Amino acid sequence: MEKNICILGSTGSIGKQALEVVAQHPEKFKILGLAAMRSIDDLETQIHQFQPKVVAVYDEEKALELRSRVQGRIKIVAGMEGLIEVATLEGAEMILNSVVGSVGVLPTLEAIKSNKQVALANKETLVVAGEYIMKEVKKHGIKMIPVDSEHSAIFQCLQGEEENSLSKIILTASGGPFRERRKEELVKVKSRDALKHPNWSMGRKISIDSATLMNKGLEVIEAKWLFDVDVDKIDVVVHPQSIIHSMIELEDASVIAQLGLPDMKLPIQYAFTFPRRFEGNLPKLDLKEIGQLTFYDVDNDKFPCLSLAYEALKIGGTMPCVVNGANEILVEYYLQDKIGFYDIPKYIEKAMTNHKAFTYQSIDEILEVDQWVRKWVTSQF
Amino acid sequence: MEKNICILGSTGSIGKQALEVVAQHPEKFKILGLAAMRSIDDLETQIHQFQPKVVAVYDEEKALELRSRVQGRIKIVAGMEGLIEVATLEGAEMILNSVVGSVGVLPTLEAIKSNKQVALANKETLVVAGEYIMKEVKKHGIKMIPVDSEHSAIFQCLQGEEENSLSKIILTASGGPFRERRKEELVKVKSRDALKHPNWSMGRKISIDSATLMNKGLEVIEAKWLFDVDVDKIDVVVHPQSIIHSMIELEDASVIAQLGLPDMKLPIQYAFTFPRRFEGNLPKLDLKEIGQLTFYDVDNDKFPCLSLAYEALKIGGTMPCVVNGANEILVEYYLQDKIGFYDIPKYIEKAMTNHKAFTYQSIDEILEVDQWVRKWVTSQF
Repeated sequence: MEKNICILGSTGSIGKQALEVVAQHPEKFKILGLAAMRSIDDLETQIHQFQPKVVAVYDEEKALELRSRVQGRIKIVAGMEGLIEVATLEGAEMILNSVVGSVGVLPTLEAIKSNKQVALANKETLVVAGEYIMKEVKKHGIKMIPVDSEHSAIFQCLQGEEENSLSKIILTASGGPFRERRKEELVKVKSRDALKHPNWSMGRKISIDSATLMNKGLEVIEAKWLFDVDVDKIDVVVHPQSIIHSMIELEDASVIAQLGLPDMKLPIQYAFTFPRRFEGNLPKLDLKEIGQLTFYDVDNDKFPCLSLAYEALKIGGTMPCVVNGANEILVEYYLQDKIGFYDIPKYIEKAMTNHKAFTYQSIDEILEVDQWVRKWVTSQF
Repeated sequence: MEKNICILGSTGSIGKQALEVVAQHPEKFKILGLAAMRSIDDLETQIHQFQPKVVAVYDEEKALELRSRVQGRIKIVAGMEGLIEVATLEGAEMILNSVVGSVGVLPTLEAIKSNKQVALANKETLVVAGEYIMKEVKKHGIKMIPVDSEHSAIFQCLQGEEENSLSKIILTASGGPFRERRKEELVKVKSRDALKHPNWSMGRKISIDSATLMNKGLEVIEAKWLFDVDVDKIDVVVHPQSIIHSMIELEDASVIAQLGLPDMKLPIQYAFTFPRRFEGNLPKLDLKEIGQLTFYDVDNDKFPCLSLAYEALKIGGTMPCVVNGANEILVEYYLQDKIGFYDIPKYIEKAMTNHKAFTYQSIDEILEVDQWVRKWVTSQF
């Protein structure tokens, strides 16, 4: 009954929570491989606790350092090659890809090609190369299970429904930490304010994306590919309590929603146990205690990033990749206080204007666009 | 692709809405049989519109009158025998039982025995004889699809989930028209006030049950049998907007809910089309427009009927039947302004005290208890 799992991005927020889930159910899950970008201190702790067979470190120098620390007791691999080795590890049934950024795309693809089940927390896989990736998913007949709370909610709601019954996807958005701030204030708001998210415990990049609502934009793009729906059938509703994690509307006007307290361990565990569920000591929702759930329209004037993502998705081809790559660089600059809050949408729009979208034929081709936009945005500052 | 349907209780609120659904989709549904208690004017209109093969009238005199009106152009049958003839009609694939009261029990049972799919809107079938009926459902391997909005919601949420994943059923209750009244006011409240329900268009009996919350009590009992859960796994939460129609909590703490605007045509159509869905021109839910959903505890002091139903279910055997039969008579008296609002729970409790619950072995045995309690309650006034 044990499921063999590899975790890419094991030292990040999702990765650590995934390891908590594994630690709670040692009879159900076994860690075969781990991978991280560069946090070798955390990796070393995880190695001692979970005894994986192979560990990958993307940063080559850090990989060397970790290798010397573990002294041959465990196989340490490095670079993209190393990530892919863990993503395709023999004996692993499920790969959780919780790497942040477009560096996650290739490992997802290789995991699919190796017929692994993929638990996907790396947004960029589908934002950058969704069309291509989903073709591979179909070709290899594998299950790709989303770990984002919103997409997991939709995935859960869709169980037992016929595919052609889906008439709308309704993504909920907390509205982020700046929902109630005025636009004039946001012009000057610093990244440290954005890092205090009201509902979810998240990584730094995602916290900023949540503040700009680009997070929701990327999720709209992901949803389009994951669930094979037209962009005009994806709605976003602001729901500050983050209790309804997302909804589907079916052809007959019935709406199915998935709810829960905001805790990423639920979608992580669900991805690990799908199609089954089991008790996981997760906190139970009591709506009487919550009292009320509220719903609002998105303020597109205050948060222009969401509209940019919709626009990119409508244009299609390479454009979502451009939005994502530009956003990634700009968020990094914003985290470093190099640019202002509204420079993020401003330069994403500029990047879009400077790119002529085309239909890409290979992952290399789309990753080249990703490289191009990063360089282009960097050159602007 | 046409589905042949019989409707028992076609002149009531659910029956009429069911015929609207049928009328909207003449290519999908065909009415083979209709049945009603005594409203032969409505029946005559329905006969002209839907051209059924057989029509049953429970009231023998009214049956005679209708027979003379249609002059042999259609077969008119009478009494319980007539209802059962429609419930077991050859060629009918689905029986909607929307009769009000325990008169609906036998037709449901006979429909099951004839291997018909049953769309169940008659609460008493399961409240009075749930244990027995569900054994027959299993024995005959038929699908029984609930039409109550709450049970339909739970049924929809359960699709795609493994049976043993269910950890809790959360029934939502509008709280009825008297939710915000003080107890002192309710002592004197008249039935005409109860008939103004805030959210749902319903029949008179159900409107009173909604005001006393006995409606929710009966639904708790139904849910126990329909979904085979322990009574302590069924919760009720007051949700005045009636947008979330009910929820299930799964073992991993995930909660799945079904939402929609309050319109009985949705669960009716779903029962007719299950496991498929299709466009039905039903109004779509827009949570941004609704704005907020609120949740409260039930005030058991103000609305004691719900606790009585829970108690009866815990006692088991014949006791839920006693609660239901007593309630049916008392609601009728309350509608006639013969008794006060709190006489309903008071005399239900008295009836329970005067009955020693036992395990019934046949439908006849349970229907005898039903008869006993009706006589007993009548004798008190």
